[in-house]
Amino acid sequence: MTTNRILVIGGVATGAKAAARARRRDPNAEITIVERGRFLSYAGCGMPYYIQGEVHDFHELMSTPAGVIRDAAFFQNVKDIRVLNQTLAEKIDRAGKKVTVVNTVTGARQDLPYDKLVIATGGVPVEPRIEDTNLNRVFRLNLPDDALAMREAVEHAGIKRAVLIGGGLIGLETAEALVTRGIHVTVVEMLDQLLPAMLDWEVAAFLEKYLRSKGLGIRLNEKVTRIEGDGNGNVARVVTSAGTLDADMVLIAIGVRPNVQLAKDAGLKLGQTGALAVNDQLQTSDPDIYAGGDCVECTHLITGQKVFVPLGSTANKHGHVIGDNITGGTSKFPGIIGTTVFKVLDYNLARTGLTEKQARQLGHNVITALVPGPDRAHYYPTAKTLLVKLVADAGNGQLLGAQVLGPGDAVKRIDVLATALTFGATMDLLAGIDLGYAPPYATAVDLIAHAANVLRNKRDGLAPALTPQQVKAKLDADEPVVLLDVRTPAERDQMQLRDPRVVWIPLGQLRKRVGELPRDKEIICFCKVSQRGYEAQRILDGLGVPNVKFLDGGLIAWPYPLEPERK
Amino acid sequence: MTTNRILVIGGVATGAKAAARARRRDPNAEITIVERGRFLSYAGCGMPYYIQGEVHDFHELMSTPAGVIRDAAFFQNVKDIRVLNQTLAEKIDRAGKKVTVVNTVTGARQDLPYDKLVIATGGVPVEPRIEDTNLNRVFRLNLPDDALAMREAVEHAGIKRAVLIGGGLIGLETAEALVTRGIHVTVVEMLDQLLPAMLDWEVAAFLEKYLRSKGLGIRLNEKVTRIEGDGNGNVARVVTSAGTLDADMVLIAIGVRPNVQLAKDAGLKLGQTGALAVNDQLQTSDPDIYAGGDCVECTHLITGQKVFVPLGSTANKHGHVIGDNITGGTSKFPGIIGTTVFKVLDYNLARTGLTEKQARQLGHNVITALVPGPDRAHYYPTAKTLLVKLVADAGNGQLLGAQVLGPGDAVKRIDVLATALTFGATMDLLAGIDLGYAPPYATAVDLIAHAANVLRNKRDGLAPALTPQQVKAKLDADEPVVLLDVRTPAERDQMQLRDPRVVWIPLGQLRKRVGELPRDKEIICFCKVSQRGYEAQRILDGLGVPNVKFLDGGLIAWPYPLEPERK
Repeated sequence: MTTNRILVIGGVATGAKAAARARRRDPNAEITIVERGRFLSYAGCGMPYYIQGEVHDFHELMSTPAGVIRDAAFFQNVKDIRVLNQTLAEKIDRAGKKVTVVNTVTGARQDLPYDKLVIATGGVPVEPRIEDTNLNRVFRLNLPDDALAMREAVEHAGIKRAVLIGGGLIGLETAEALVTRGIHVTVVEMLDQLLPAMLDWEVAAFLEKYLRSKGLGIRLNEKVTRIEGDGNGNVARVVTSAGTLDADMVLIAIGVRPNVQLAKDAGLKLGQTGALAVNDQLQTSDPDIYAGGDCVECTHLITGQKVFVPLGSTANKHGHVIGDNITGGTSKFPGIIGTTVFKVLDYNLARTGLTEKQARQLGHNVITALVPGPDRAHYYPTAKTLLVKLVADAGNGQLLGAQVLGPGDAVKRIDVLATALTFGATMDLLAGIDLGYAPPYATAVDLIAHAANVLRNKRDGLAPALTPQQVKAKLDADEPVVLLDVRTPAERDQMQLRDPRVVWIPLGQLRKRVGELPRDKEIICFCKVSQRGYEAQRILDGLGVPNVKFLDGGLIAWPYPLEPERK
Repeated sequence: MTTNRILVIGGVATGAKAAARARRRDPNAEITIVERGRFLSYAGCGMPYYIQGEVHDFHELMSTPAGVIRDAAFFQNVKDIRVLNQTLAEKIDRAGKKVTVVNTVTGARQDLPYDKLVIATGGVPVEPRIEDTNLNRVFRLNLPDDALAMREAVEHAGIKRAVLIGGGLIGLETAEALVTRGIHVTVVEMLDQLLPAMLDWEVAAFLEKYLRSKGLGIRLNEKVTRIEGDGNGNVARVVTSAGTLDADMVLIAIGVRPNVQLAKDAGLKLGQTGALAVNDQLQTSDPDIYAGGDCVECTHLITGQKVFVPLGSTANKHGHVIGDNITGGTSKFPGIIGTTVFKVLDYNLARTGLTEKQARQLGHNVITALVPGPDRAHYYPTAKTLLVKLVADAGNGQLLGAQVLGPGDAVKRIDVLATALTFGATMDLLAGIDLGYAPPYATAVDLIAHAANVLRNKRDGLAPALTPQQVKAKLDADEPVVLLDVRTPAERDQMQLRDPRVVWIPLGQLRKRVGELPRDKEIICFCKVSQRGYEAQRILDGLGVPNVKFLDGGLIAWPYPLEPERK
């Protein structure tokens, strides 16, 4: 039996996992990892928490739960895996089945032979097409040295004002880190919303309201045109299409692209997204070369399309599958469903599947529900609010996507929804799932089941609703609608939608006072979350009042100003 | 068109929901609720938190999130539903389509006609066959008056010692309430474990260790034979098969049975479980009579068998389905998957599907994984431990059940697993689900995906393991095994399995020191959680050492004494 020579390029998530898994399956393989950096097998997703100080020592990000650092000696002693770090792979010779590598410290070159090669070269930050991005304290957050330098600056350089270029996930996670350290942060986003690839507009607006209330500066529809220095090589200002922002520090986080130059030079096939194309066994166009993690594209399980969604969870799963397949296995990675979760300043944010916008672009007959509510029994002391948006196909009832966010437990709901979507669940099936109920954890009908019921009621014609955007358009067009507020007096004192078209009749009086409402105008019922708005719609409809609807999501989800502003 | 006369017996979860849903669908129906108690539509599951004081005022349990009490006036004004409370349904006349009811205050009787009747009479506590269960301060926890009386006693009667008869869910939730109020609590359970219907033995033992560490008295394999008073009508002692326990207060919580006398007297068909038999539209054997909640049996979606599992979540879903079907709809309630979650003294406990014991009794070729681990990135400050047990069929890979508990977020995992089980997921599919990952919420490979991988490795012969019970049996039988501890020195100082057969070689030294191990004995590797135990097994197997296994769940899940005891 010949020894299987396995060479892995990249020693972080996919690479380290593939090598370790391969060793557990094949004790006799010769396994080598080539890693360009100093560190191996570190948790890149933990870097914002290191900058924040929640993680004290960077070594915690590359230690096992038992406190052992996963360095070259660890890989050698425990895994019998040779690691060459600070070593760059320069060239793949597919015919000769060898890779030329160079030690970035000594400059020494060598050729490493392989039987199976794993490409796990990860991603690199997208660079904006502007000048002076290499001033001091203009950062990207990609490698450990980036995080180390950012924390150093935050702790010792007297940073007062930071500008984050890009309103995406990494930008917002880093915003949390900086804001909690007392730094004034401004996010500059070119598009008209935060997280444009992840959230629909009104959901992003809900997040935006919250972040502004926490002091975060948010500038949308603004393009950074220039970064300026102070004359000593340090960053001083960010100039945008709408003005100038002082900045002691800048983070460029406008996206990640796959690091595929090496693979491209070797003639391996790239996909439509620009990332490496792989089959469901994570094999590239060369059957002896596998690839995974942030340098490959994945199949989206709902659309069947190829997508580039670089995430640590996917990278680790890829490593497992590759570890199997380079040692004679036939494991498969079926694809992703588009789940992303993160925390920003005590809001939990989670999404899966398609946004409404994406679903419409794909031609679905879209139906949506926008439902705020408590994440556990409202009388239980730790209950917190969530906003749920569900997107489904009105034709076959299939769930297509979900967005959940707020101070409550959003991630649990999205994990359930991601599972349901993976199995092709319909809104009817979602409503019936036997989810765990006890007052400290959920409501008797969990918020996502309730949202599924809202979808079903809409589909069945029982719950005619208007989205916030549709209502705002009517108001802006001076349509003579009635906005029927059915809340209690105490609620009305707290927060109001100021408009002369608002009529206030608390729900308990509505049946008696129905005569006060006009019959010739569209009536739009609302309350705080629109559960009573819906109830009011049913009451008026039952009493024969024509043309009654309710406002999706009520005042909580209203993405426009209210008086006084919601806290 | 004739008016649909809907009569609902029972105004709490199912009944109130069915009536409200019916009204939203049919504005013209005449809807009446008959409720034996004073209160309507209260959250029975919240009663332990009222006793605990986490919920201050009982009215919170029957208020809407906006603070409106759901009383008879609320139902009349908002829902146009007539409520007769403190009114008992005495007799159903199916031929005459009417129900005789009596006002329990005035004694007045009347007959109420119906076109559709809903039976939502709930459950009643099972009574033990012992005497003197009606002494003062011998409680059951079923109705609001029970909770009000218990809280009154706890706050004003100087209770020092309480005995809970029954180690089930209600007993343990109430234990939390009493322990946090400074009362010494002893649970007496007839069987050899807590929660026998919900958990496997070793999982219950993990919970038991924790509860004992919090000062809870737990007496297993003990049968209560007598309750004794102090001569003034107050409870003073509980006598069991093994001794006598002083008690100022007793809770009898040995189970719930369906309240079906009324339905039985009317000749409606009962199921094998003794609860009312209903079809998937929740129709009884009389097509004009529907029933739901704690008085009916449900179909278990995994076994297809009828089961009696009274839960508030199911009761509310039933109400929705019944509300549809008594107003011309054709909604279905497919069944339950056996999900139960609850909190006891900062442990979160959750389960779904079948236990290993149940799966074996049903003839499955069972494979299990017992996997402790952190619920989020181990370096993230709020990370906490969980113990996961998965049960699957080794033949087709289908997941059959799961138990998750510990201080970490157990409920999220069970909700995902309940969803996966509902869709018939296999261990392979579970491992690949695109669950949300960010350090504050999960590990890159979530603990349940990791546990699914352990199942797959076991199935594929890559991970030969022994359960704690199997290892204990070998130790007790004086088998000459080697218990190989591969932990770090610091870990070994914290907690040890004391046995002369333990050999200690830290994992990083194992490859070099393999010669120290005998070749003629079975070697059982372990660490804290058995991830390194598994790694050690792979190393030794790869080095040609015969007969190596690892201990499922490591020391964390070891249900027998350790030194010093795990905190």
